[in-house]
Amino acid sequence: MRIEILDTTLRDGAQAERVVFSIEDKIKIIRALDKMGVDFIEAGNPGASPKDAKLFEFARDNIALENSRLAAFGMTCRAGAKAEEDAQLLALAACGAGVVSLVGKACAFQVREVLRVPLEENLRMVSDSIRFLTEKGIRVFFDAEHFFDGFARDEEYAMDVLAAALKAGAERLILCDTNGGTLPETTQSVVEKVCSRFGNVVGIHTHNDSGLATACTMFAVRGGAVQVQGTINGYGERCGNANLCTVIPNLALKMGYDVLLSGNLTALSGTARFVADIANLQMDEKTPYVGDSAFAHKAGMHIDGVMKNPATFEHVLPEDVGNHRRYLLSEQSGRGALMLKLKQIAPDIDRDSPEVANIVNMLKKLEADGYAFEDADASLELRILGALGRRREFFRVIDFNVVCRKPEDEKNSQAYVKIGVGNQVEITADEGNGPVDALDRALKKALLRFYPLLGGVRLVDLKVRVVEDRGTESSVRFMMESTDGKRVWSTVGYSSNIIEASFIALSDSIEYLLMLES
Amino acid sequence: MRIEILDTTLRDGAQAERVVFSIEDKIKIIRALDKMGVDFIEAGNPGASPKDAKLFEFARDNIALENSRLAAFGMTCRAGAKAEEDAQLLALAACGAGVVSLVGKACAFQVREVLRVPLEENLRMVSDSIRFLTEKGIRVFFDAEHFFDGFARDEEYAMDVLAAALKAGAERLILCDTNGGTLPETTQSVVEKVCSRFGNVVGIHTHNDSGLATACTMFAVRGGAVQVQGTINGYGERCGNANLCTVIPNLALKMGYDVLLSGNLTALSGTARFVADIANLQMDEKTPYVGDSAFAHKAGMHIDGVMKNPATFEHVLPEDVGNHRRYLLSEQSGRGALMLKLKQIAPDIDRDSPEVANIVNMLKKLEADGYAFEDADASLELRILGALGRRREFFRVIDFNVVCRKPEDEKNSQAYVKIGVGNQVEITADEGNGPVDALDRALKKALLRFYPLLGGVRLVDLKVRVVEDRGTESSVRFMMESTDGKRVWSTVGYSSNIIEASFIALSDSIEYLLMLES
Repeated sequence: MRIEILDTTLRDGAQAERVVFSIEDKIKIIRALDKMGVDFIEAGNPGASPKDAKLFEFARDNIALENSRLAAFGMTCRAGAKAEEDAQLLALAACGAGVVSLVGKACAFQVREVLRVPLEENLRMVSDSIRFLTEKGIRVFFDAEHFFDGFARDEEYAMDVLAAALKAGAERLILCDTNGGTLPETTQSVVEKVCSRFGNVVGIHTHNDSGLATACTMFAVRGGAVQVQGTINGYGERCGNANLCTVIPNLALKMGYDVLLSGNLTALSGTARFVADIANLQMDEKTPYVGDSAFAHKAGMHIDGVMKNPATFEHVLPEDVGNHRRYLLSEQSGRGALMLKLKQIAPDIDRDSPEVANIVNMLKKLEADGYAFEDADASLELRILGALGRRREFFRVIDFNVVCRKPEDEKNSQAYVKIGVGNQVEITADEGNGPVDALDRALKKALLRFYPLLGGVRLVDLKVRVVEDRGTESSVRFMMESTDGKRVWSTVGYSSNIIEASFIALSDSIEYLLMLES
Repeated sequence: MRIEILDTTLRDGAQAERVVFSIEDKIKIIRALDKMGVDFIEAGNPGASPKDAKLFEFARDNIALENSRLAAFGMTCRAGAKAEEDAQLLALAACGAGVVSLVGKACAFQVREVLRVPLEENLRMVSDSIRFLTEKGIRVFFDAEHFFDGFARDEEYAMDVLAAALKAGAERLILCDTNGGTLPETTQSVVEKVCSRFGNVVGIHTHNDSGLATACTMFAVRGGAVQVQGTINGYGERCGNANLCTVIPNLALKMGYDVLLSGNLTALSGTARFVADIANLQMDEKTPYVGDSAFAHKAGMHIDGVMKNPATFEHVLPEDVGNHRRYLLSEQSGRGALMLKLKQIAPDIDRDSPEVANIVNMLKKLEADGYAFEDADASLELRILGALGRRREFFRVIDFNVVCRKPEDEKNSQAYVKIGVGNQVEITADEGNGPVDALDRALKKALLRFYPLLGGVRLVDLKVRVVEDRGTESSVRFMMESTDGKRVWSTVGYSSNIIEASFIALSDSIEYLLMLES
């Protein structure tokens, strides 16, 4: 049986502390989710956030999704106001998303305590708002906020709200455990009651405040829910939402449901890490299925068992979810991914050649040092070409030096660089806004005489992440995305000195373009 | 009904990647667990680890526990060997712990694939090893490894192992879901079958590989288990063990069981953080009940609701588990959150006063500039005090200057600072690993003569994020978390110069501590 997945990373996930997505971030995540094949991507609230309004406008004209549908999120109209005059509903109708998740209160206590309107008026708000959208041909999923608490306190009213939503044309009734306090067995029995009254139109939306979001989601599906809502890495307000990276493989591998595109479970680990990178949050490596520790074996007895038969200490095979097994004493890296890369840049190299073994060893060493290449293709390519003896020297950095003062104006930093190109040496300096800018300018200035095309390069994004935690001496990973207007490439530098880390990423970035253009 | 808690943080928890406890660490954690009142503390494996042997020796003579009992962990004797000659069992008997958790295989597949001994011989090993200990008056909890997988593959043999253990004198039969792949409903039905045959002697030990360790533990208790095993913060091999900080409040607050010492649930949050500190691991702030985000509200609508009645968006009260409520100031929250903050730091200020309007405008302007305070409480407090004219000047930075060279060693950066304290001026310099480190050292060095307490401050975490995208001139947000060993506070700096951004966060951090201590 098919279970629909609605991903709300970009909407409910953005309610998480420390999570802020730019429009560019959201676009990247939408593309990744589409590729993985979730059914719906709830991307934001165009009626409340100008940023999200821009996103939907951009998406309408520029994003053609292959597997997923974009959904917009919004609230029912206000008390005492007409749905057709509600600015927010008008924005939802106009945003171009064919699907809207519309949230309304399904709990008498909440209507009284928070909305402070008569129970009847709330029913009208739900009903009118949904009808306003469905009459325009928009598919509506009704998010019944606080449904489980509402059901416990006043079952009849909670059911009345659902009935009103369904009558107004809602396609799905999403039962939300907004406060995350409901137990799995309760979740199942409530879902069963709702399904037996309204049919196979139920979705489930849980939060992890009791550490049970995954279990409650699974029990809801057992009870008859046909749609599951959650977020990548469980991002969300307070303790987070149901983590799709756990729920999806549980549904597929342990309960036999049909989810995502066939065969796409292997995209899970990569997607989880990609979204964490975009959110600039450390991946929680203990995360089931997708964390780096999920199939890491430390106890000698466990390693011995797994080497005899993986089923002795693994509940599923790591490759089924795109993850890999690690033995903590003798780390293994994904040769499959490496071979794919090699096919692109050195198709003549054979899988079993000594060169591949060398590259694997080099990457292991660099990763142990703190490098991470999954988001830095250009740097990876340069390192691999280096290991193959095919890296061309376009220039070499002989020395550099940066001075930063207490800023009085935008030219507060001065950089000096000394580079060699062939047997010529160039020494120059420049100033800039901050040390990275000053270094960038000085380096490009020194190289421009040899490589005029560098004039068109600029930085698109940069991210800095602390890797090894030793106070202000912490080692950092500096990720950089550059463009020459035609293409975008990513590089990475790692060092306990933030300036050196940035400089490595900077010089990789320049070298990569020179290589492409040579 | 009373449910026994066995904490295995110091044994199974130490199997987690990145977790290493020294003897001193273990002693500190034992004292904290005893104070909280867990029933049993499984502290290590004295027969296999000389470090653990020393720990038990020390504990016997020097640690008088008030509420808990210390348990030692070990394995059954080897195949073909006598229990009474097994060095490991002799060490267990001699270590002075009155309770031993003894692990043996309960799964025919494992006996064949890993032990590679006849099924009968495994029964003998279990039986002889337990009898060897119980005859010496030691209480034995039998850890039936892989019990659930064993039950699924060969129910009769799995039950035979339990019967042998019980006959040899085991007090508890601990059913282990070693690979973490069993579902909650299966867990419950298996526990029910075991209880109906052997009585109320069952314990449950789960792992989180399917994100279900908490649920499985609760379902086992429903099925009749009287002992629950887990770890603080869920530390453990791969995806970790059942997190006692989630399981305990679920059992107590949601299922009505009697756990820990009466009233001691409030020790949970402090204990979780203390153990994370000792393990030198970042606390996962999304953790249910005990994480810093567990009761943090970000959406304006949620803040509004909680202010009207906490039950609208909280499943339990934070103070019941020793945690606290937080309102996050962000683009999604309104004036309500600010007023709550003001109540803490300037309770005399009225909601409608011009000061509040000033602060709102200042925060809006700072956020538009790229600041984000939701994760930087200390900086926010300083800015608000500043706007109220109540910010005290502990020092002022007159000038600074940093030089970074192409790194040859760990002292590759030099910083010069000139500061004023009252009418005294101090000029000094220091060197460091990278510019932030050099500045941090120089600034603290200059201030130390005036404020000796700064000697104890260190950085816990830092994060850098590009906000406004203008290539290498991009503006960055520099978030910093500092500690003096007693408390943790967060500051933020924003600038197009990464060095200046870090310097603002650094100097806010120092000022905040001076304010607290003044």
